[in-house]
Amino acid sequence: METLRWHDSQLILLDQTKLPGHETYISCTTWEDVRHAISILAVRGAPAIGVAAAYGVVLGAMSLSQLTDRREFLRRLDDICRQLDASRPTAVNLHWAVQRMLDQARRTLSDSSIAACIASLKHLADTMRQEDVAINRSLSQYGAAVMAEQGKKLNILTHCNAGALATAGIGTALGVIRALHRQGLVHRVYADETRPLLQGARLTVTELMADHIPVTLITDNMAAWVMKTKGVDAVIVGADRIARNGDTANKIGTYGLSVLAREHHIPFYVAAPISTFDVSLHTGGEIPIEERNPDEVRSFYGVQTALPEAPVCNPAFDVTPHEYITAIFTEKGAILHPDSAQIDRVFNQL
Amino acid sequence: METLRWHDSQLILLDQTKLPGHETYISCTTWEDVRHAISILAVRGAPAIGVAAAYGVVLGAMSLSQLTDRREFLRRLDDICRQLDASRPTAVNLHWAVQRMLDQARRTLSDSSIAACIASLKHLADTMRQEDVAINRSLSQYGAAVMAEQGKKLNILTHCNAGALATAGIGTALGVIRALHRQGLVHRVYADETRPLLQGARLTVTELMADHIPVTLITDNMAAWVMKTKGVDAVIVGADRIARNGDTANKIGTYGLSVLAREHHIPFYVAAPISTFDVSLHTGGEIPIEERNPDEVRSFYGVQTALPEAPVCNPAFDVTPHEYITAIFTEKGAILHPDSAQIDRVFNQL
Repeated sequence: METLRWHDSQLILLDQTKLPGHETYISCTTWEDVRHAISILAVRGAPAIGVAAAYGVVLGAMSLSQLTDRREFLRRLDDICRQLDASRPTAVNLHWAVQRMLDQARRTLSDSSIAACIASLKHLADTMRQEDVAINRSLSQYGAAVMAEQGKKLNILTHCNAGALATAGIGTALGVIRALHRQGLVHRVYADETRPLLQGARLTVTELMADHIPVTLITDNMAAWVMKTKGVDAVIVGADRIARNGDTANKIGTYGLSVLAREHHIPFYVAAPISTFDVSLHTGGEIPIEERNPDEVRSFYGVQTALPEAPVCNPAFDVTPHEYITAIFTEKGAILHPDSAQIDRVFNQL
Repeated sequence: METLRWHDSQLILLDQTKLPGHETYISCTTWEDVRHAISILAVRGAPAIGVAAAYGVVLGAMSLSQLTDRREFLRRLDDICRQLDASRPTAVNLHWAVQRMLDQARRTLSDSSIAACIASLKHLADTMRQEDVAINRSLSQYGAAVMAEQGKKLNILTHCNAGALATAGIGTALGVIRALHRQGLVHRVYADETRPLLQGARLTVTELMADHIPVTLITDNMAAWVMKTKGVDAVIVGADRIARNGDTANKIGTYGLSVLAREHHIPFYVAAPISTFDVSLHTGGEIPIEERNPDEVRSFYGVQTALPEAPVCNPAFDVTPHEYITAIFTEKGAILHPDSAQIDRVFNQL
């Protein structure tokens, strides 16, 4: 299984909505294909969305290759970028990746041809994919080092999927778990199924079983009881956007887990690349929360579970206050007890 | 829709596993039919299980009507009762109802015929059904009176189904909500879908919509975020067994909600008949927790969601410590800040 790859002028995406039952791939030949794949969660996970969107910009630029006017090219590329950026509102890596591509286009067009610009965009998208692999590896090492300090094999609870399927590499939260496992420090992973779209059941369990890491699937509402009765030593999750003070938007259910972790004196970790930080936002209250289709809650995979007219609330994310976070693991190191001062210090050193 | 009724020597049970899609009924002509219906959750909810089991004992007694030896009758009825009692381990009302029937059989047989004994068992089962209706109404009044003290229309969060479908009457937790609604004091009910068997989505939402009580369906992992952002004023749930100190076993996820409610300074209420108390147990640690089929977690209403060999944990219940419970509403009144002393006081007055 490969989350995403570029082949023959197409972005090939693993269709994660079909996992674990079917391993099928979507060939994106246009930027609209990429936008659609992001919006239906065929590709998901903040870092993977970022890389996919970068290739979406490449496909967008390729669709404009017949243009001769650089300003017209840039104007239309800017429009494509805006639409790609809008395909999902919460994960900031998407915005970050698209902006980085657009900046590159502007820079190269100042002294190069449109064809050269397109080539450089393709080169940058490849670089971003490779960078994500290295970032995953680096933050996983930092995270594993902190968690290894407990000095024993750990029971670790995770939510949603912050794994290889959410990134171009070994994953963020699951990257840390993989690094710990290589050191013999994982006793068992408890994976929340993560309603409504069940990324935990469908993706995390599948990934960990493939790597022979002991995993137990639970429903989301079992997390508190598992913490109380099974001896959970740590909770680790990914992130979709982190405000300057450390408040972290992640998959719905994360905030509740952070409260439950604190109640049970369990450290609560976030694993995310620096590109997940949005230091333009002072607190998590400013992070836009995507509200998705109510039918996701009223049904699953086409099976209706509630009356079709049942009123529903379906926020895809929630925000965990930084006070509940023991550390954020990034490729630049672990930010312990994250707050504005700690995060400013990291950004000042970049 | 009628949860259960006796008709023409049969126990007619609404098949709750098929709701809300299909309103179908199961005709139980033998006590084994009743045991099976309880074990597959065709009938569920502690009070409804108790009444169904009482009629199961009637069917068991009827199957022994050809016997002439009273001792043989009693021996075999005792065996049937033991098997009915074992159909689900956590809800104590089941045990309570079956014991009450067996005591009645013993008493009547001392000076009556087997035929008269069977008639008196049928009469007692009818009485228990009627009592449950009255108990629901009474505890709902007590509960509504306490909750009305907030002096405003309430946003109320509930879990699983403690409604008409879980009882012979208007329900326990939903009985309280119905009583509040009649007083114009319900702003909105948030109903957790309640994985794995989705009693919230399938049953609670259906019941409340039928009564035109405003309800919003959420996934279990949204509860914390809804508490934080929607202004939840109270949480109310049912119970399957309550220890002498007030520790309460209820549907998995209840314990987590109690922790989240405390974090958000939201009162947490339990609504349950006196028959739910098991004063033979000093604390909730002694309550047996039913572990159910892992396929309930690996699939969603028949749709496979995780690898079929994925390890799973599937406790059907958890235990909420009494310290997290603001009050228990019973037909004898509200037990505020329940603990051994408070509960002993209630039981001493019975």
